[in-house]
Formats: sequence, C-alpha cells, structure tokens
Amino acid sequence: MHRIRVGIVGYGNLGKGAAQAVDAAPDMQLKAIFSRRDPDKLRDTGEIDRNVAILSIEAADKMAGDIDVMLLCGGSATDLPEQGPYFAKLFNTVDSYDNHAKIPEYMAVVDAVAKKTTAIISTGWDPGLFSMMRVLFESSLPNGKSYTFWGEGVSQGHSDAIRRIKGVKLAAQYTIPIEKAVTAVRSGQKPIFTAREKHKRDCFVVCEPDADKAKIAETITNMPHYFAEFDTKVTFIDEEEFAKKHSKMPHGGMVLRSGSTSDNKQHMEFSLKLESNPEFTGSLMVAYARAASRLSKEGLYGAKTVFDVPLSYLSVTDRDTLIKELL
Amino acid sequence: MHRIRVGIVGYGNLGKGAAQAVDAAPDMQLKAIFSRRDPDKLRDTGEIDRNVAILSIEAADKMAGDIDVMLLCGGSATDLPEQGPYFAKLFNTVDSYDNHAKIPEYMAVVDAVAKKTTAIISTGWDPGLFSMMRVLFESSLPNGKSYTFWGEGVSQGHSDAIRRIKGVKLAAQYTIPIEKAVTAVRSGQKPIFTAREKHKRDCFVVCEPDADKAKIAETITNMPHYFAEFDTKVTFIDEEEFAKKHSKMPHGGMVLRSGSTSDNKQHMEFSLKLESNPEFTGSLMVAYARAASRLSKEGLYGAKTVFDVPLSYLSVTDRDTLIKELL
Repeated sequence: MHRIRVGIVGYGNLGKGAAQAVDAAPDMQLKAIFSRRDPDKLRDTGEIDRNVAILSIEAADKMAGDIDVMLLCGGSATDLPEQGPYFAKLFNTVDSYDNHAKIPEYMAVVDAVAKKTTAIISTGWDPGLFSMMRVLFESSLPNGKSYTFWGEGVSQGHSDAIRRIKGVKLAAQYTIPIEKAVTAVRSGQKPIFTAREKHKRDCFVVCEPDADKAKIAETITNMPHYFAEFDTKVTFIDEEEFAKKHSKMPHGGMVLRSGSTSDNKQHMEFSLKLESNPEFTGSLMVAYARAASRLSKEGLYGAKTVFDVPLSYLSVTDRDTLIKELL
Repeated sequence: MHRIRVGIVGYGNLGKGAAQAVDAAPDMQLKAIFSRRDPDKLRDTGEIDRNVAILSIEAADKMAGDIDVMLLCGGSATDLPEQGPYFAKLFNTVDSYDNHAKIPEYMAVVDAVAKKTTAIISTGWDPGLFSMMRVLFESSLPNGKSYTFWGEGVSQGHSDAIRRIKGVKLAAQYTIPIEKAVTAVRSGQKPIFTAREKHKRDCFVVCEPDADKAKIAETITNMPHYFAEFDTKVTFIDEEEFAKKHSKMPHGGMVLRSGSTSDNKQHMEFSLKLESNPEFTGSLMVAYARAASRLSKEGLYGAKTVFDVPLSYLSVTDRDTLIKELL
C-alpha cells in the first residue's frame, strides 16, 4: 500500500497531537516537520525527538513532490492567514482555522491559490464536528432550535487574556456550561439565553510576587467580551498546585437540537468529553488528511470544508467494508 | 425556484411522516402517493385526505418524467426487496432499508438497475444517522471502542413477535438501555457486554378474553433471539390503557465511543430522543431526497449510502450560507 506522506507545519501542542495521530494511522507516514524556528536547534535541544526531517518553512517548496498532505498546525490569529495560502499553493492541506467570523474570507484566499491542490479548512471539533452536527441536525429536524455549549474545558483565548494582565504569571480559564440551561433545552422548551445563562467561567491564576490580587481579580471579572458578561470566579493558587492540577488541556461540549414534527417532540444531541483538546484535534486533522489526499486524486481541487466531504473519505476502512460492518 | 417533485410509495406510518416532512420543506412538493392498495378506496375512505394524485404502484412508469425523487416507505422484509429495484430503475429513490445483515445484497440489486438514477439506501437513524456516527467516531478516534444502545422506545419487530402469539390482541414492546452499562462506557472502562447487560425489554400486552396469561407470559420471556437473552417484563393491561399510553411510537438511542490518544481519555457521544420514530425517519428521508436529486443532476448515479453524501447536500440552505453561519 502506498502510504499517504504527511508533513506537519508547526510543532506546538496541536502539531504534537497531529504527529501522534499520524503514527497511529496505518495508511500514513510522517515525512517532515516544518517550523518557523531554527531546525537545528529544535533537533539539538531534543524538542523534536523524532527520526524525521525537520525543515524551515521557507524550504517547503523543495518538498513539493515528497509530501501528499500538509497539516497546518499553527494558530488562527497570525500563522494560518499567512501559512494557509502559502502551503495550499504547493500542497494539499488540512488546517483547523477557528476564527468563525473570518472563515469565508480565509476560505476565499486559500481557494484562490488551490488550483491544483485540495485544502480542507477549519477541521477540528468547533469549527469541525460541531459544525457538521449543526448542519445535520437542522437538516434532519427543520422545525427546531439548535444550541451549542462549550466545556467543561480550558479556553486558550480566555487563559491568554488573563496572562496579559500585569502581575499574572500563569492562568487557566475553564468554560463551564450551566447545567440548568442544558436541562431546559433537553426538556424541549426552546429557551432563549443570555451569555450569562449558558456558561460560567472559572479562573485559576498564579501571580508574580507582590502582585495586587484584588486588582487582578477585578480586572478579570470586568474585562468586556471575555468575562464581564459571565459569572466569573477567580481563584489564586501557587505554582505547584497549578502544575499539578491545571497543566492539561481538557475540553469538550455539546450540540443539541430541540425540535418537533407534527405535535411530537424530537431531540438530537452530540457531545464530546476530551482529556486532551490538541490531541483530539490532531486526530481529526489526520482523518481529514485522508480525505484531502483522496479528493485531490479525484481532481476535486480548491478550498473545502467538513460540509463537502463524504464520511467514507475519512475512514481507513474501504467503503464496502464500512457498508457491511457499520451501516 | 424549481421545487423538487416528490413521490411517496406506501402510506403507512412512515409514508405519512414523510408526507408531513415534504410539506415542511420549502424546496419540495408532493406530486403523488403510490400504494399497493386500490387508489379509489384510499381516497373514498378518507385514508389519504390530501389533494394529491393517488396511484397504484403499477402506474409508476407513467410518472417517470413527473417525479424527481421517490421516497420508498415500505417495510424491509417484503416491500423494499421488490420495490427498491423496481423504482430505482425509473426514478431517483430514497429508502430506509433496515435489515442490516442483508444491506450489501440489497444494495447490489438496486445498484445494478440504477444506471441513470441515484438510489440512496438505508437512510433513517439506524441504519442512517447512527451508522454515520459509527464511521465518524471510529475515524476521529481510531484507538477506542464503539457502543450502540437503543431505546427507550418501541421496537416494531418485537411487538410484532408478541402479537403473533395465540391469545394476544395488542402488544407494545419497549427496548430500554441499562443505565449501569451506559455509565460504565462513559467512564472509559471499555467493557464487554452480554445482550442482557446492555438492554432490557418491557412488554405491555392486551389479551383476548379467556386467554391463558401465564402461558403467554412464559412464551414471551422464553422466545429465543427476541426475549430469552434479555431480562423481560410482561405487564397485562386492558385495551383502554393500551390506547391511552402505548399507541405512540417513541424511540431513540445512542452511539458512544470511548477511546484515547496517548494516555488521555477521549469520549464521543450521539443520542436521539424521539416521540415519533416514523415522523423523524420520514424527515430524514426528505433530507436525503434533496441529496438524491442533486447527486443525480451531477451524474452520480447508482446505489449510494449515507457514507457517500456530503452533509451540505442535505440542507435547504446554500453552501456559502452554511459556511458563513454554521461552520
């Protein structure tokens, strides 16, 4: 079997998760890791301890014939807007671009260069699996209302926002769905919620010595968009406790649809409970790498989304076996 | 907008549910209902009280130019093995063929005649949505174990089996997942269950006068394949209570996958809670009718499954709007 040759761009938490997922895929092989950082240093320091080519991003064009799909594991704020079109011009790509408001714009830029390549954007779980459920649920049950809850889990964006406050050394912010709201949706009431009624926020913060804790707590709870619209709890802890209890990246959430046909209530629900958000996202990107490779072989070029990919394209198992065993 | 012209074959519970779902779809119109029974009688008795053509199945070939997609709403035991290939030769079709073991055989027969038509087989929720989740979950989380639970809900097959016992007038059988088993899966233990450990069965039975209730109860609980392998409870009730409490067709269930990446547990879950099984199944068939119409226009002929259809094809909303609003 010709194994799909995979490259990974960016070796942070997501890149590491993706690399593990490639290892676990019998139909793939990891060919190279690309980084903005100095490849020699990454190897010498042992930060990348795999027996795989480590290359600078600028060297990517030399690998055009050697890699079937490139997994873009950078962030959505600054990495992907640049790396998405750069790589999609040369390679089939999969990314997890997650700035919901800017997806159409990002997609257009990637699509414009993906003339002979397939670029699947915004995979992962939200956007990604949750988006798929929203479309599937709405199509299955047109008369209804959909809800998305996130958590319980660590939000990187909110943790970052806390870390930017003067005097804060470490921070982890947990987004927590409010059980009463979930119960109300399940009962079929189709409630309309404020932000505060759906989620609460729990923050664990380690301060620099002599920091003004009262002021930090006030700055957090009053921060507009991030915290002011939610019930937010701030707990100050020491570094040791932080390392022990808050260094993992759990997450999850659920998509629910409460609807009806004639006078009958119908309810659909999808949920995730993840101990490692980046490892799960990396695993999903690998499933979509399989799809990107196949779509590209079929000449279906351009920017694609999770809405465009038949489910059988994600599986390592052939279609006949899927139909026999899982249909 | 050209509305998709839909025909319905078979006007039992599923056919009625499908007709309601066509009414609710702004991009579709119901053109005709086909039945094995005498069309004049169906209209005269008021059994079909819609302002729509009622035709015998034999007259279908005369409608070949007037219907875009035919929804086959017959049963899997005897109707669909005959009607599937008969209609797929002339029309795009959608069915909910649900005899899991015989799906490949049925698919081959339909595929052989669908030379210029698209036939999406085995839609609904299991097979259907649940099958999609099994493939999606396994692809997302290769290292793990999947579980399907059914219920709480009425199983037609099991209710029928009870009704065939001498002395039984009415029967409703509820399949009920065992909470302890569901909890064990959610905990990540990856247990292996016997049939008895996963589901129990609750039967409500109305007898003919003078029937031997003890013997009926014994016949039910010892019936191999249907009941003997489960903890089964039989309750005898009168006709009034049956009509009041057991004339609806609720169902549902869940697909769970418990897996891991490195040493982190990851859990995925999908569930349905339906007050009307046939209305929900009918609604799903209508979503797949939209897909069948589109696949056919694109020249993608032959027998297809839910694994082959991109999710955007199910939606009444155009792809750009889906990407903007739901991705």
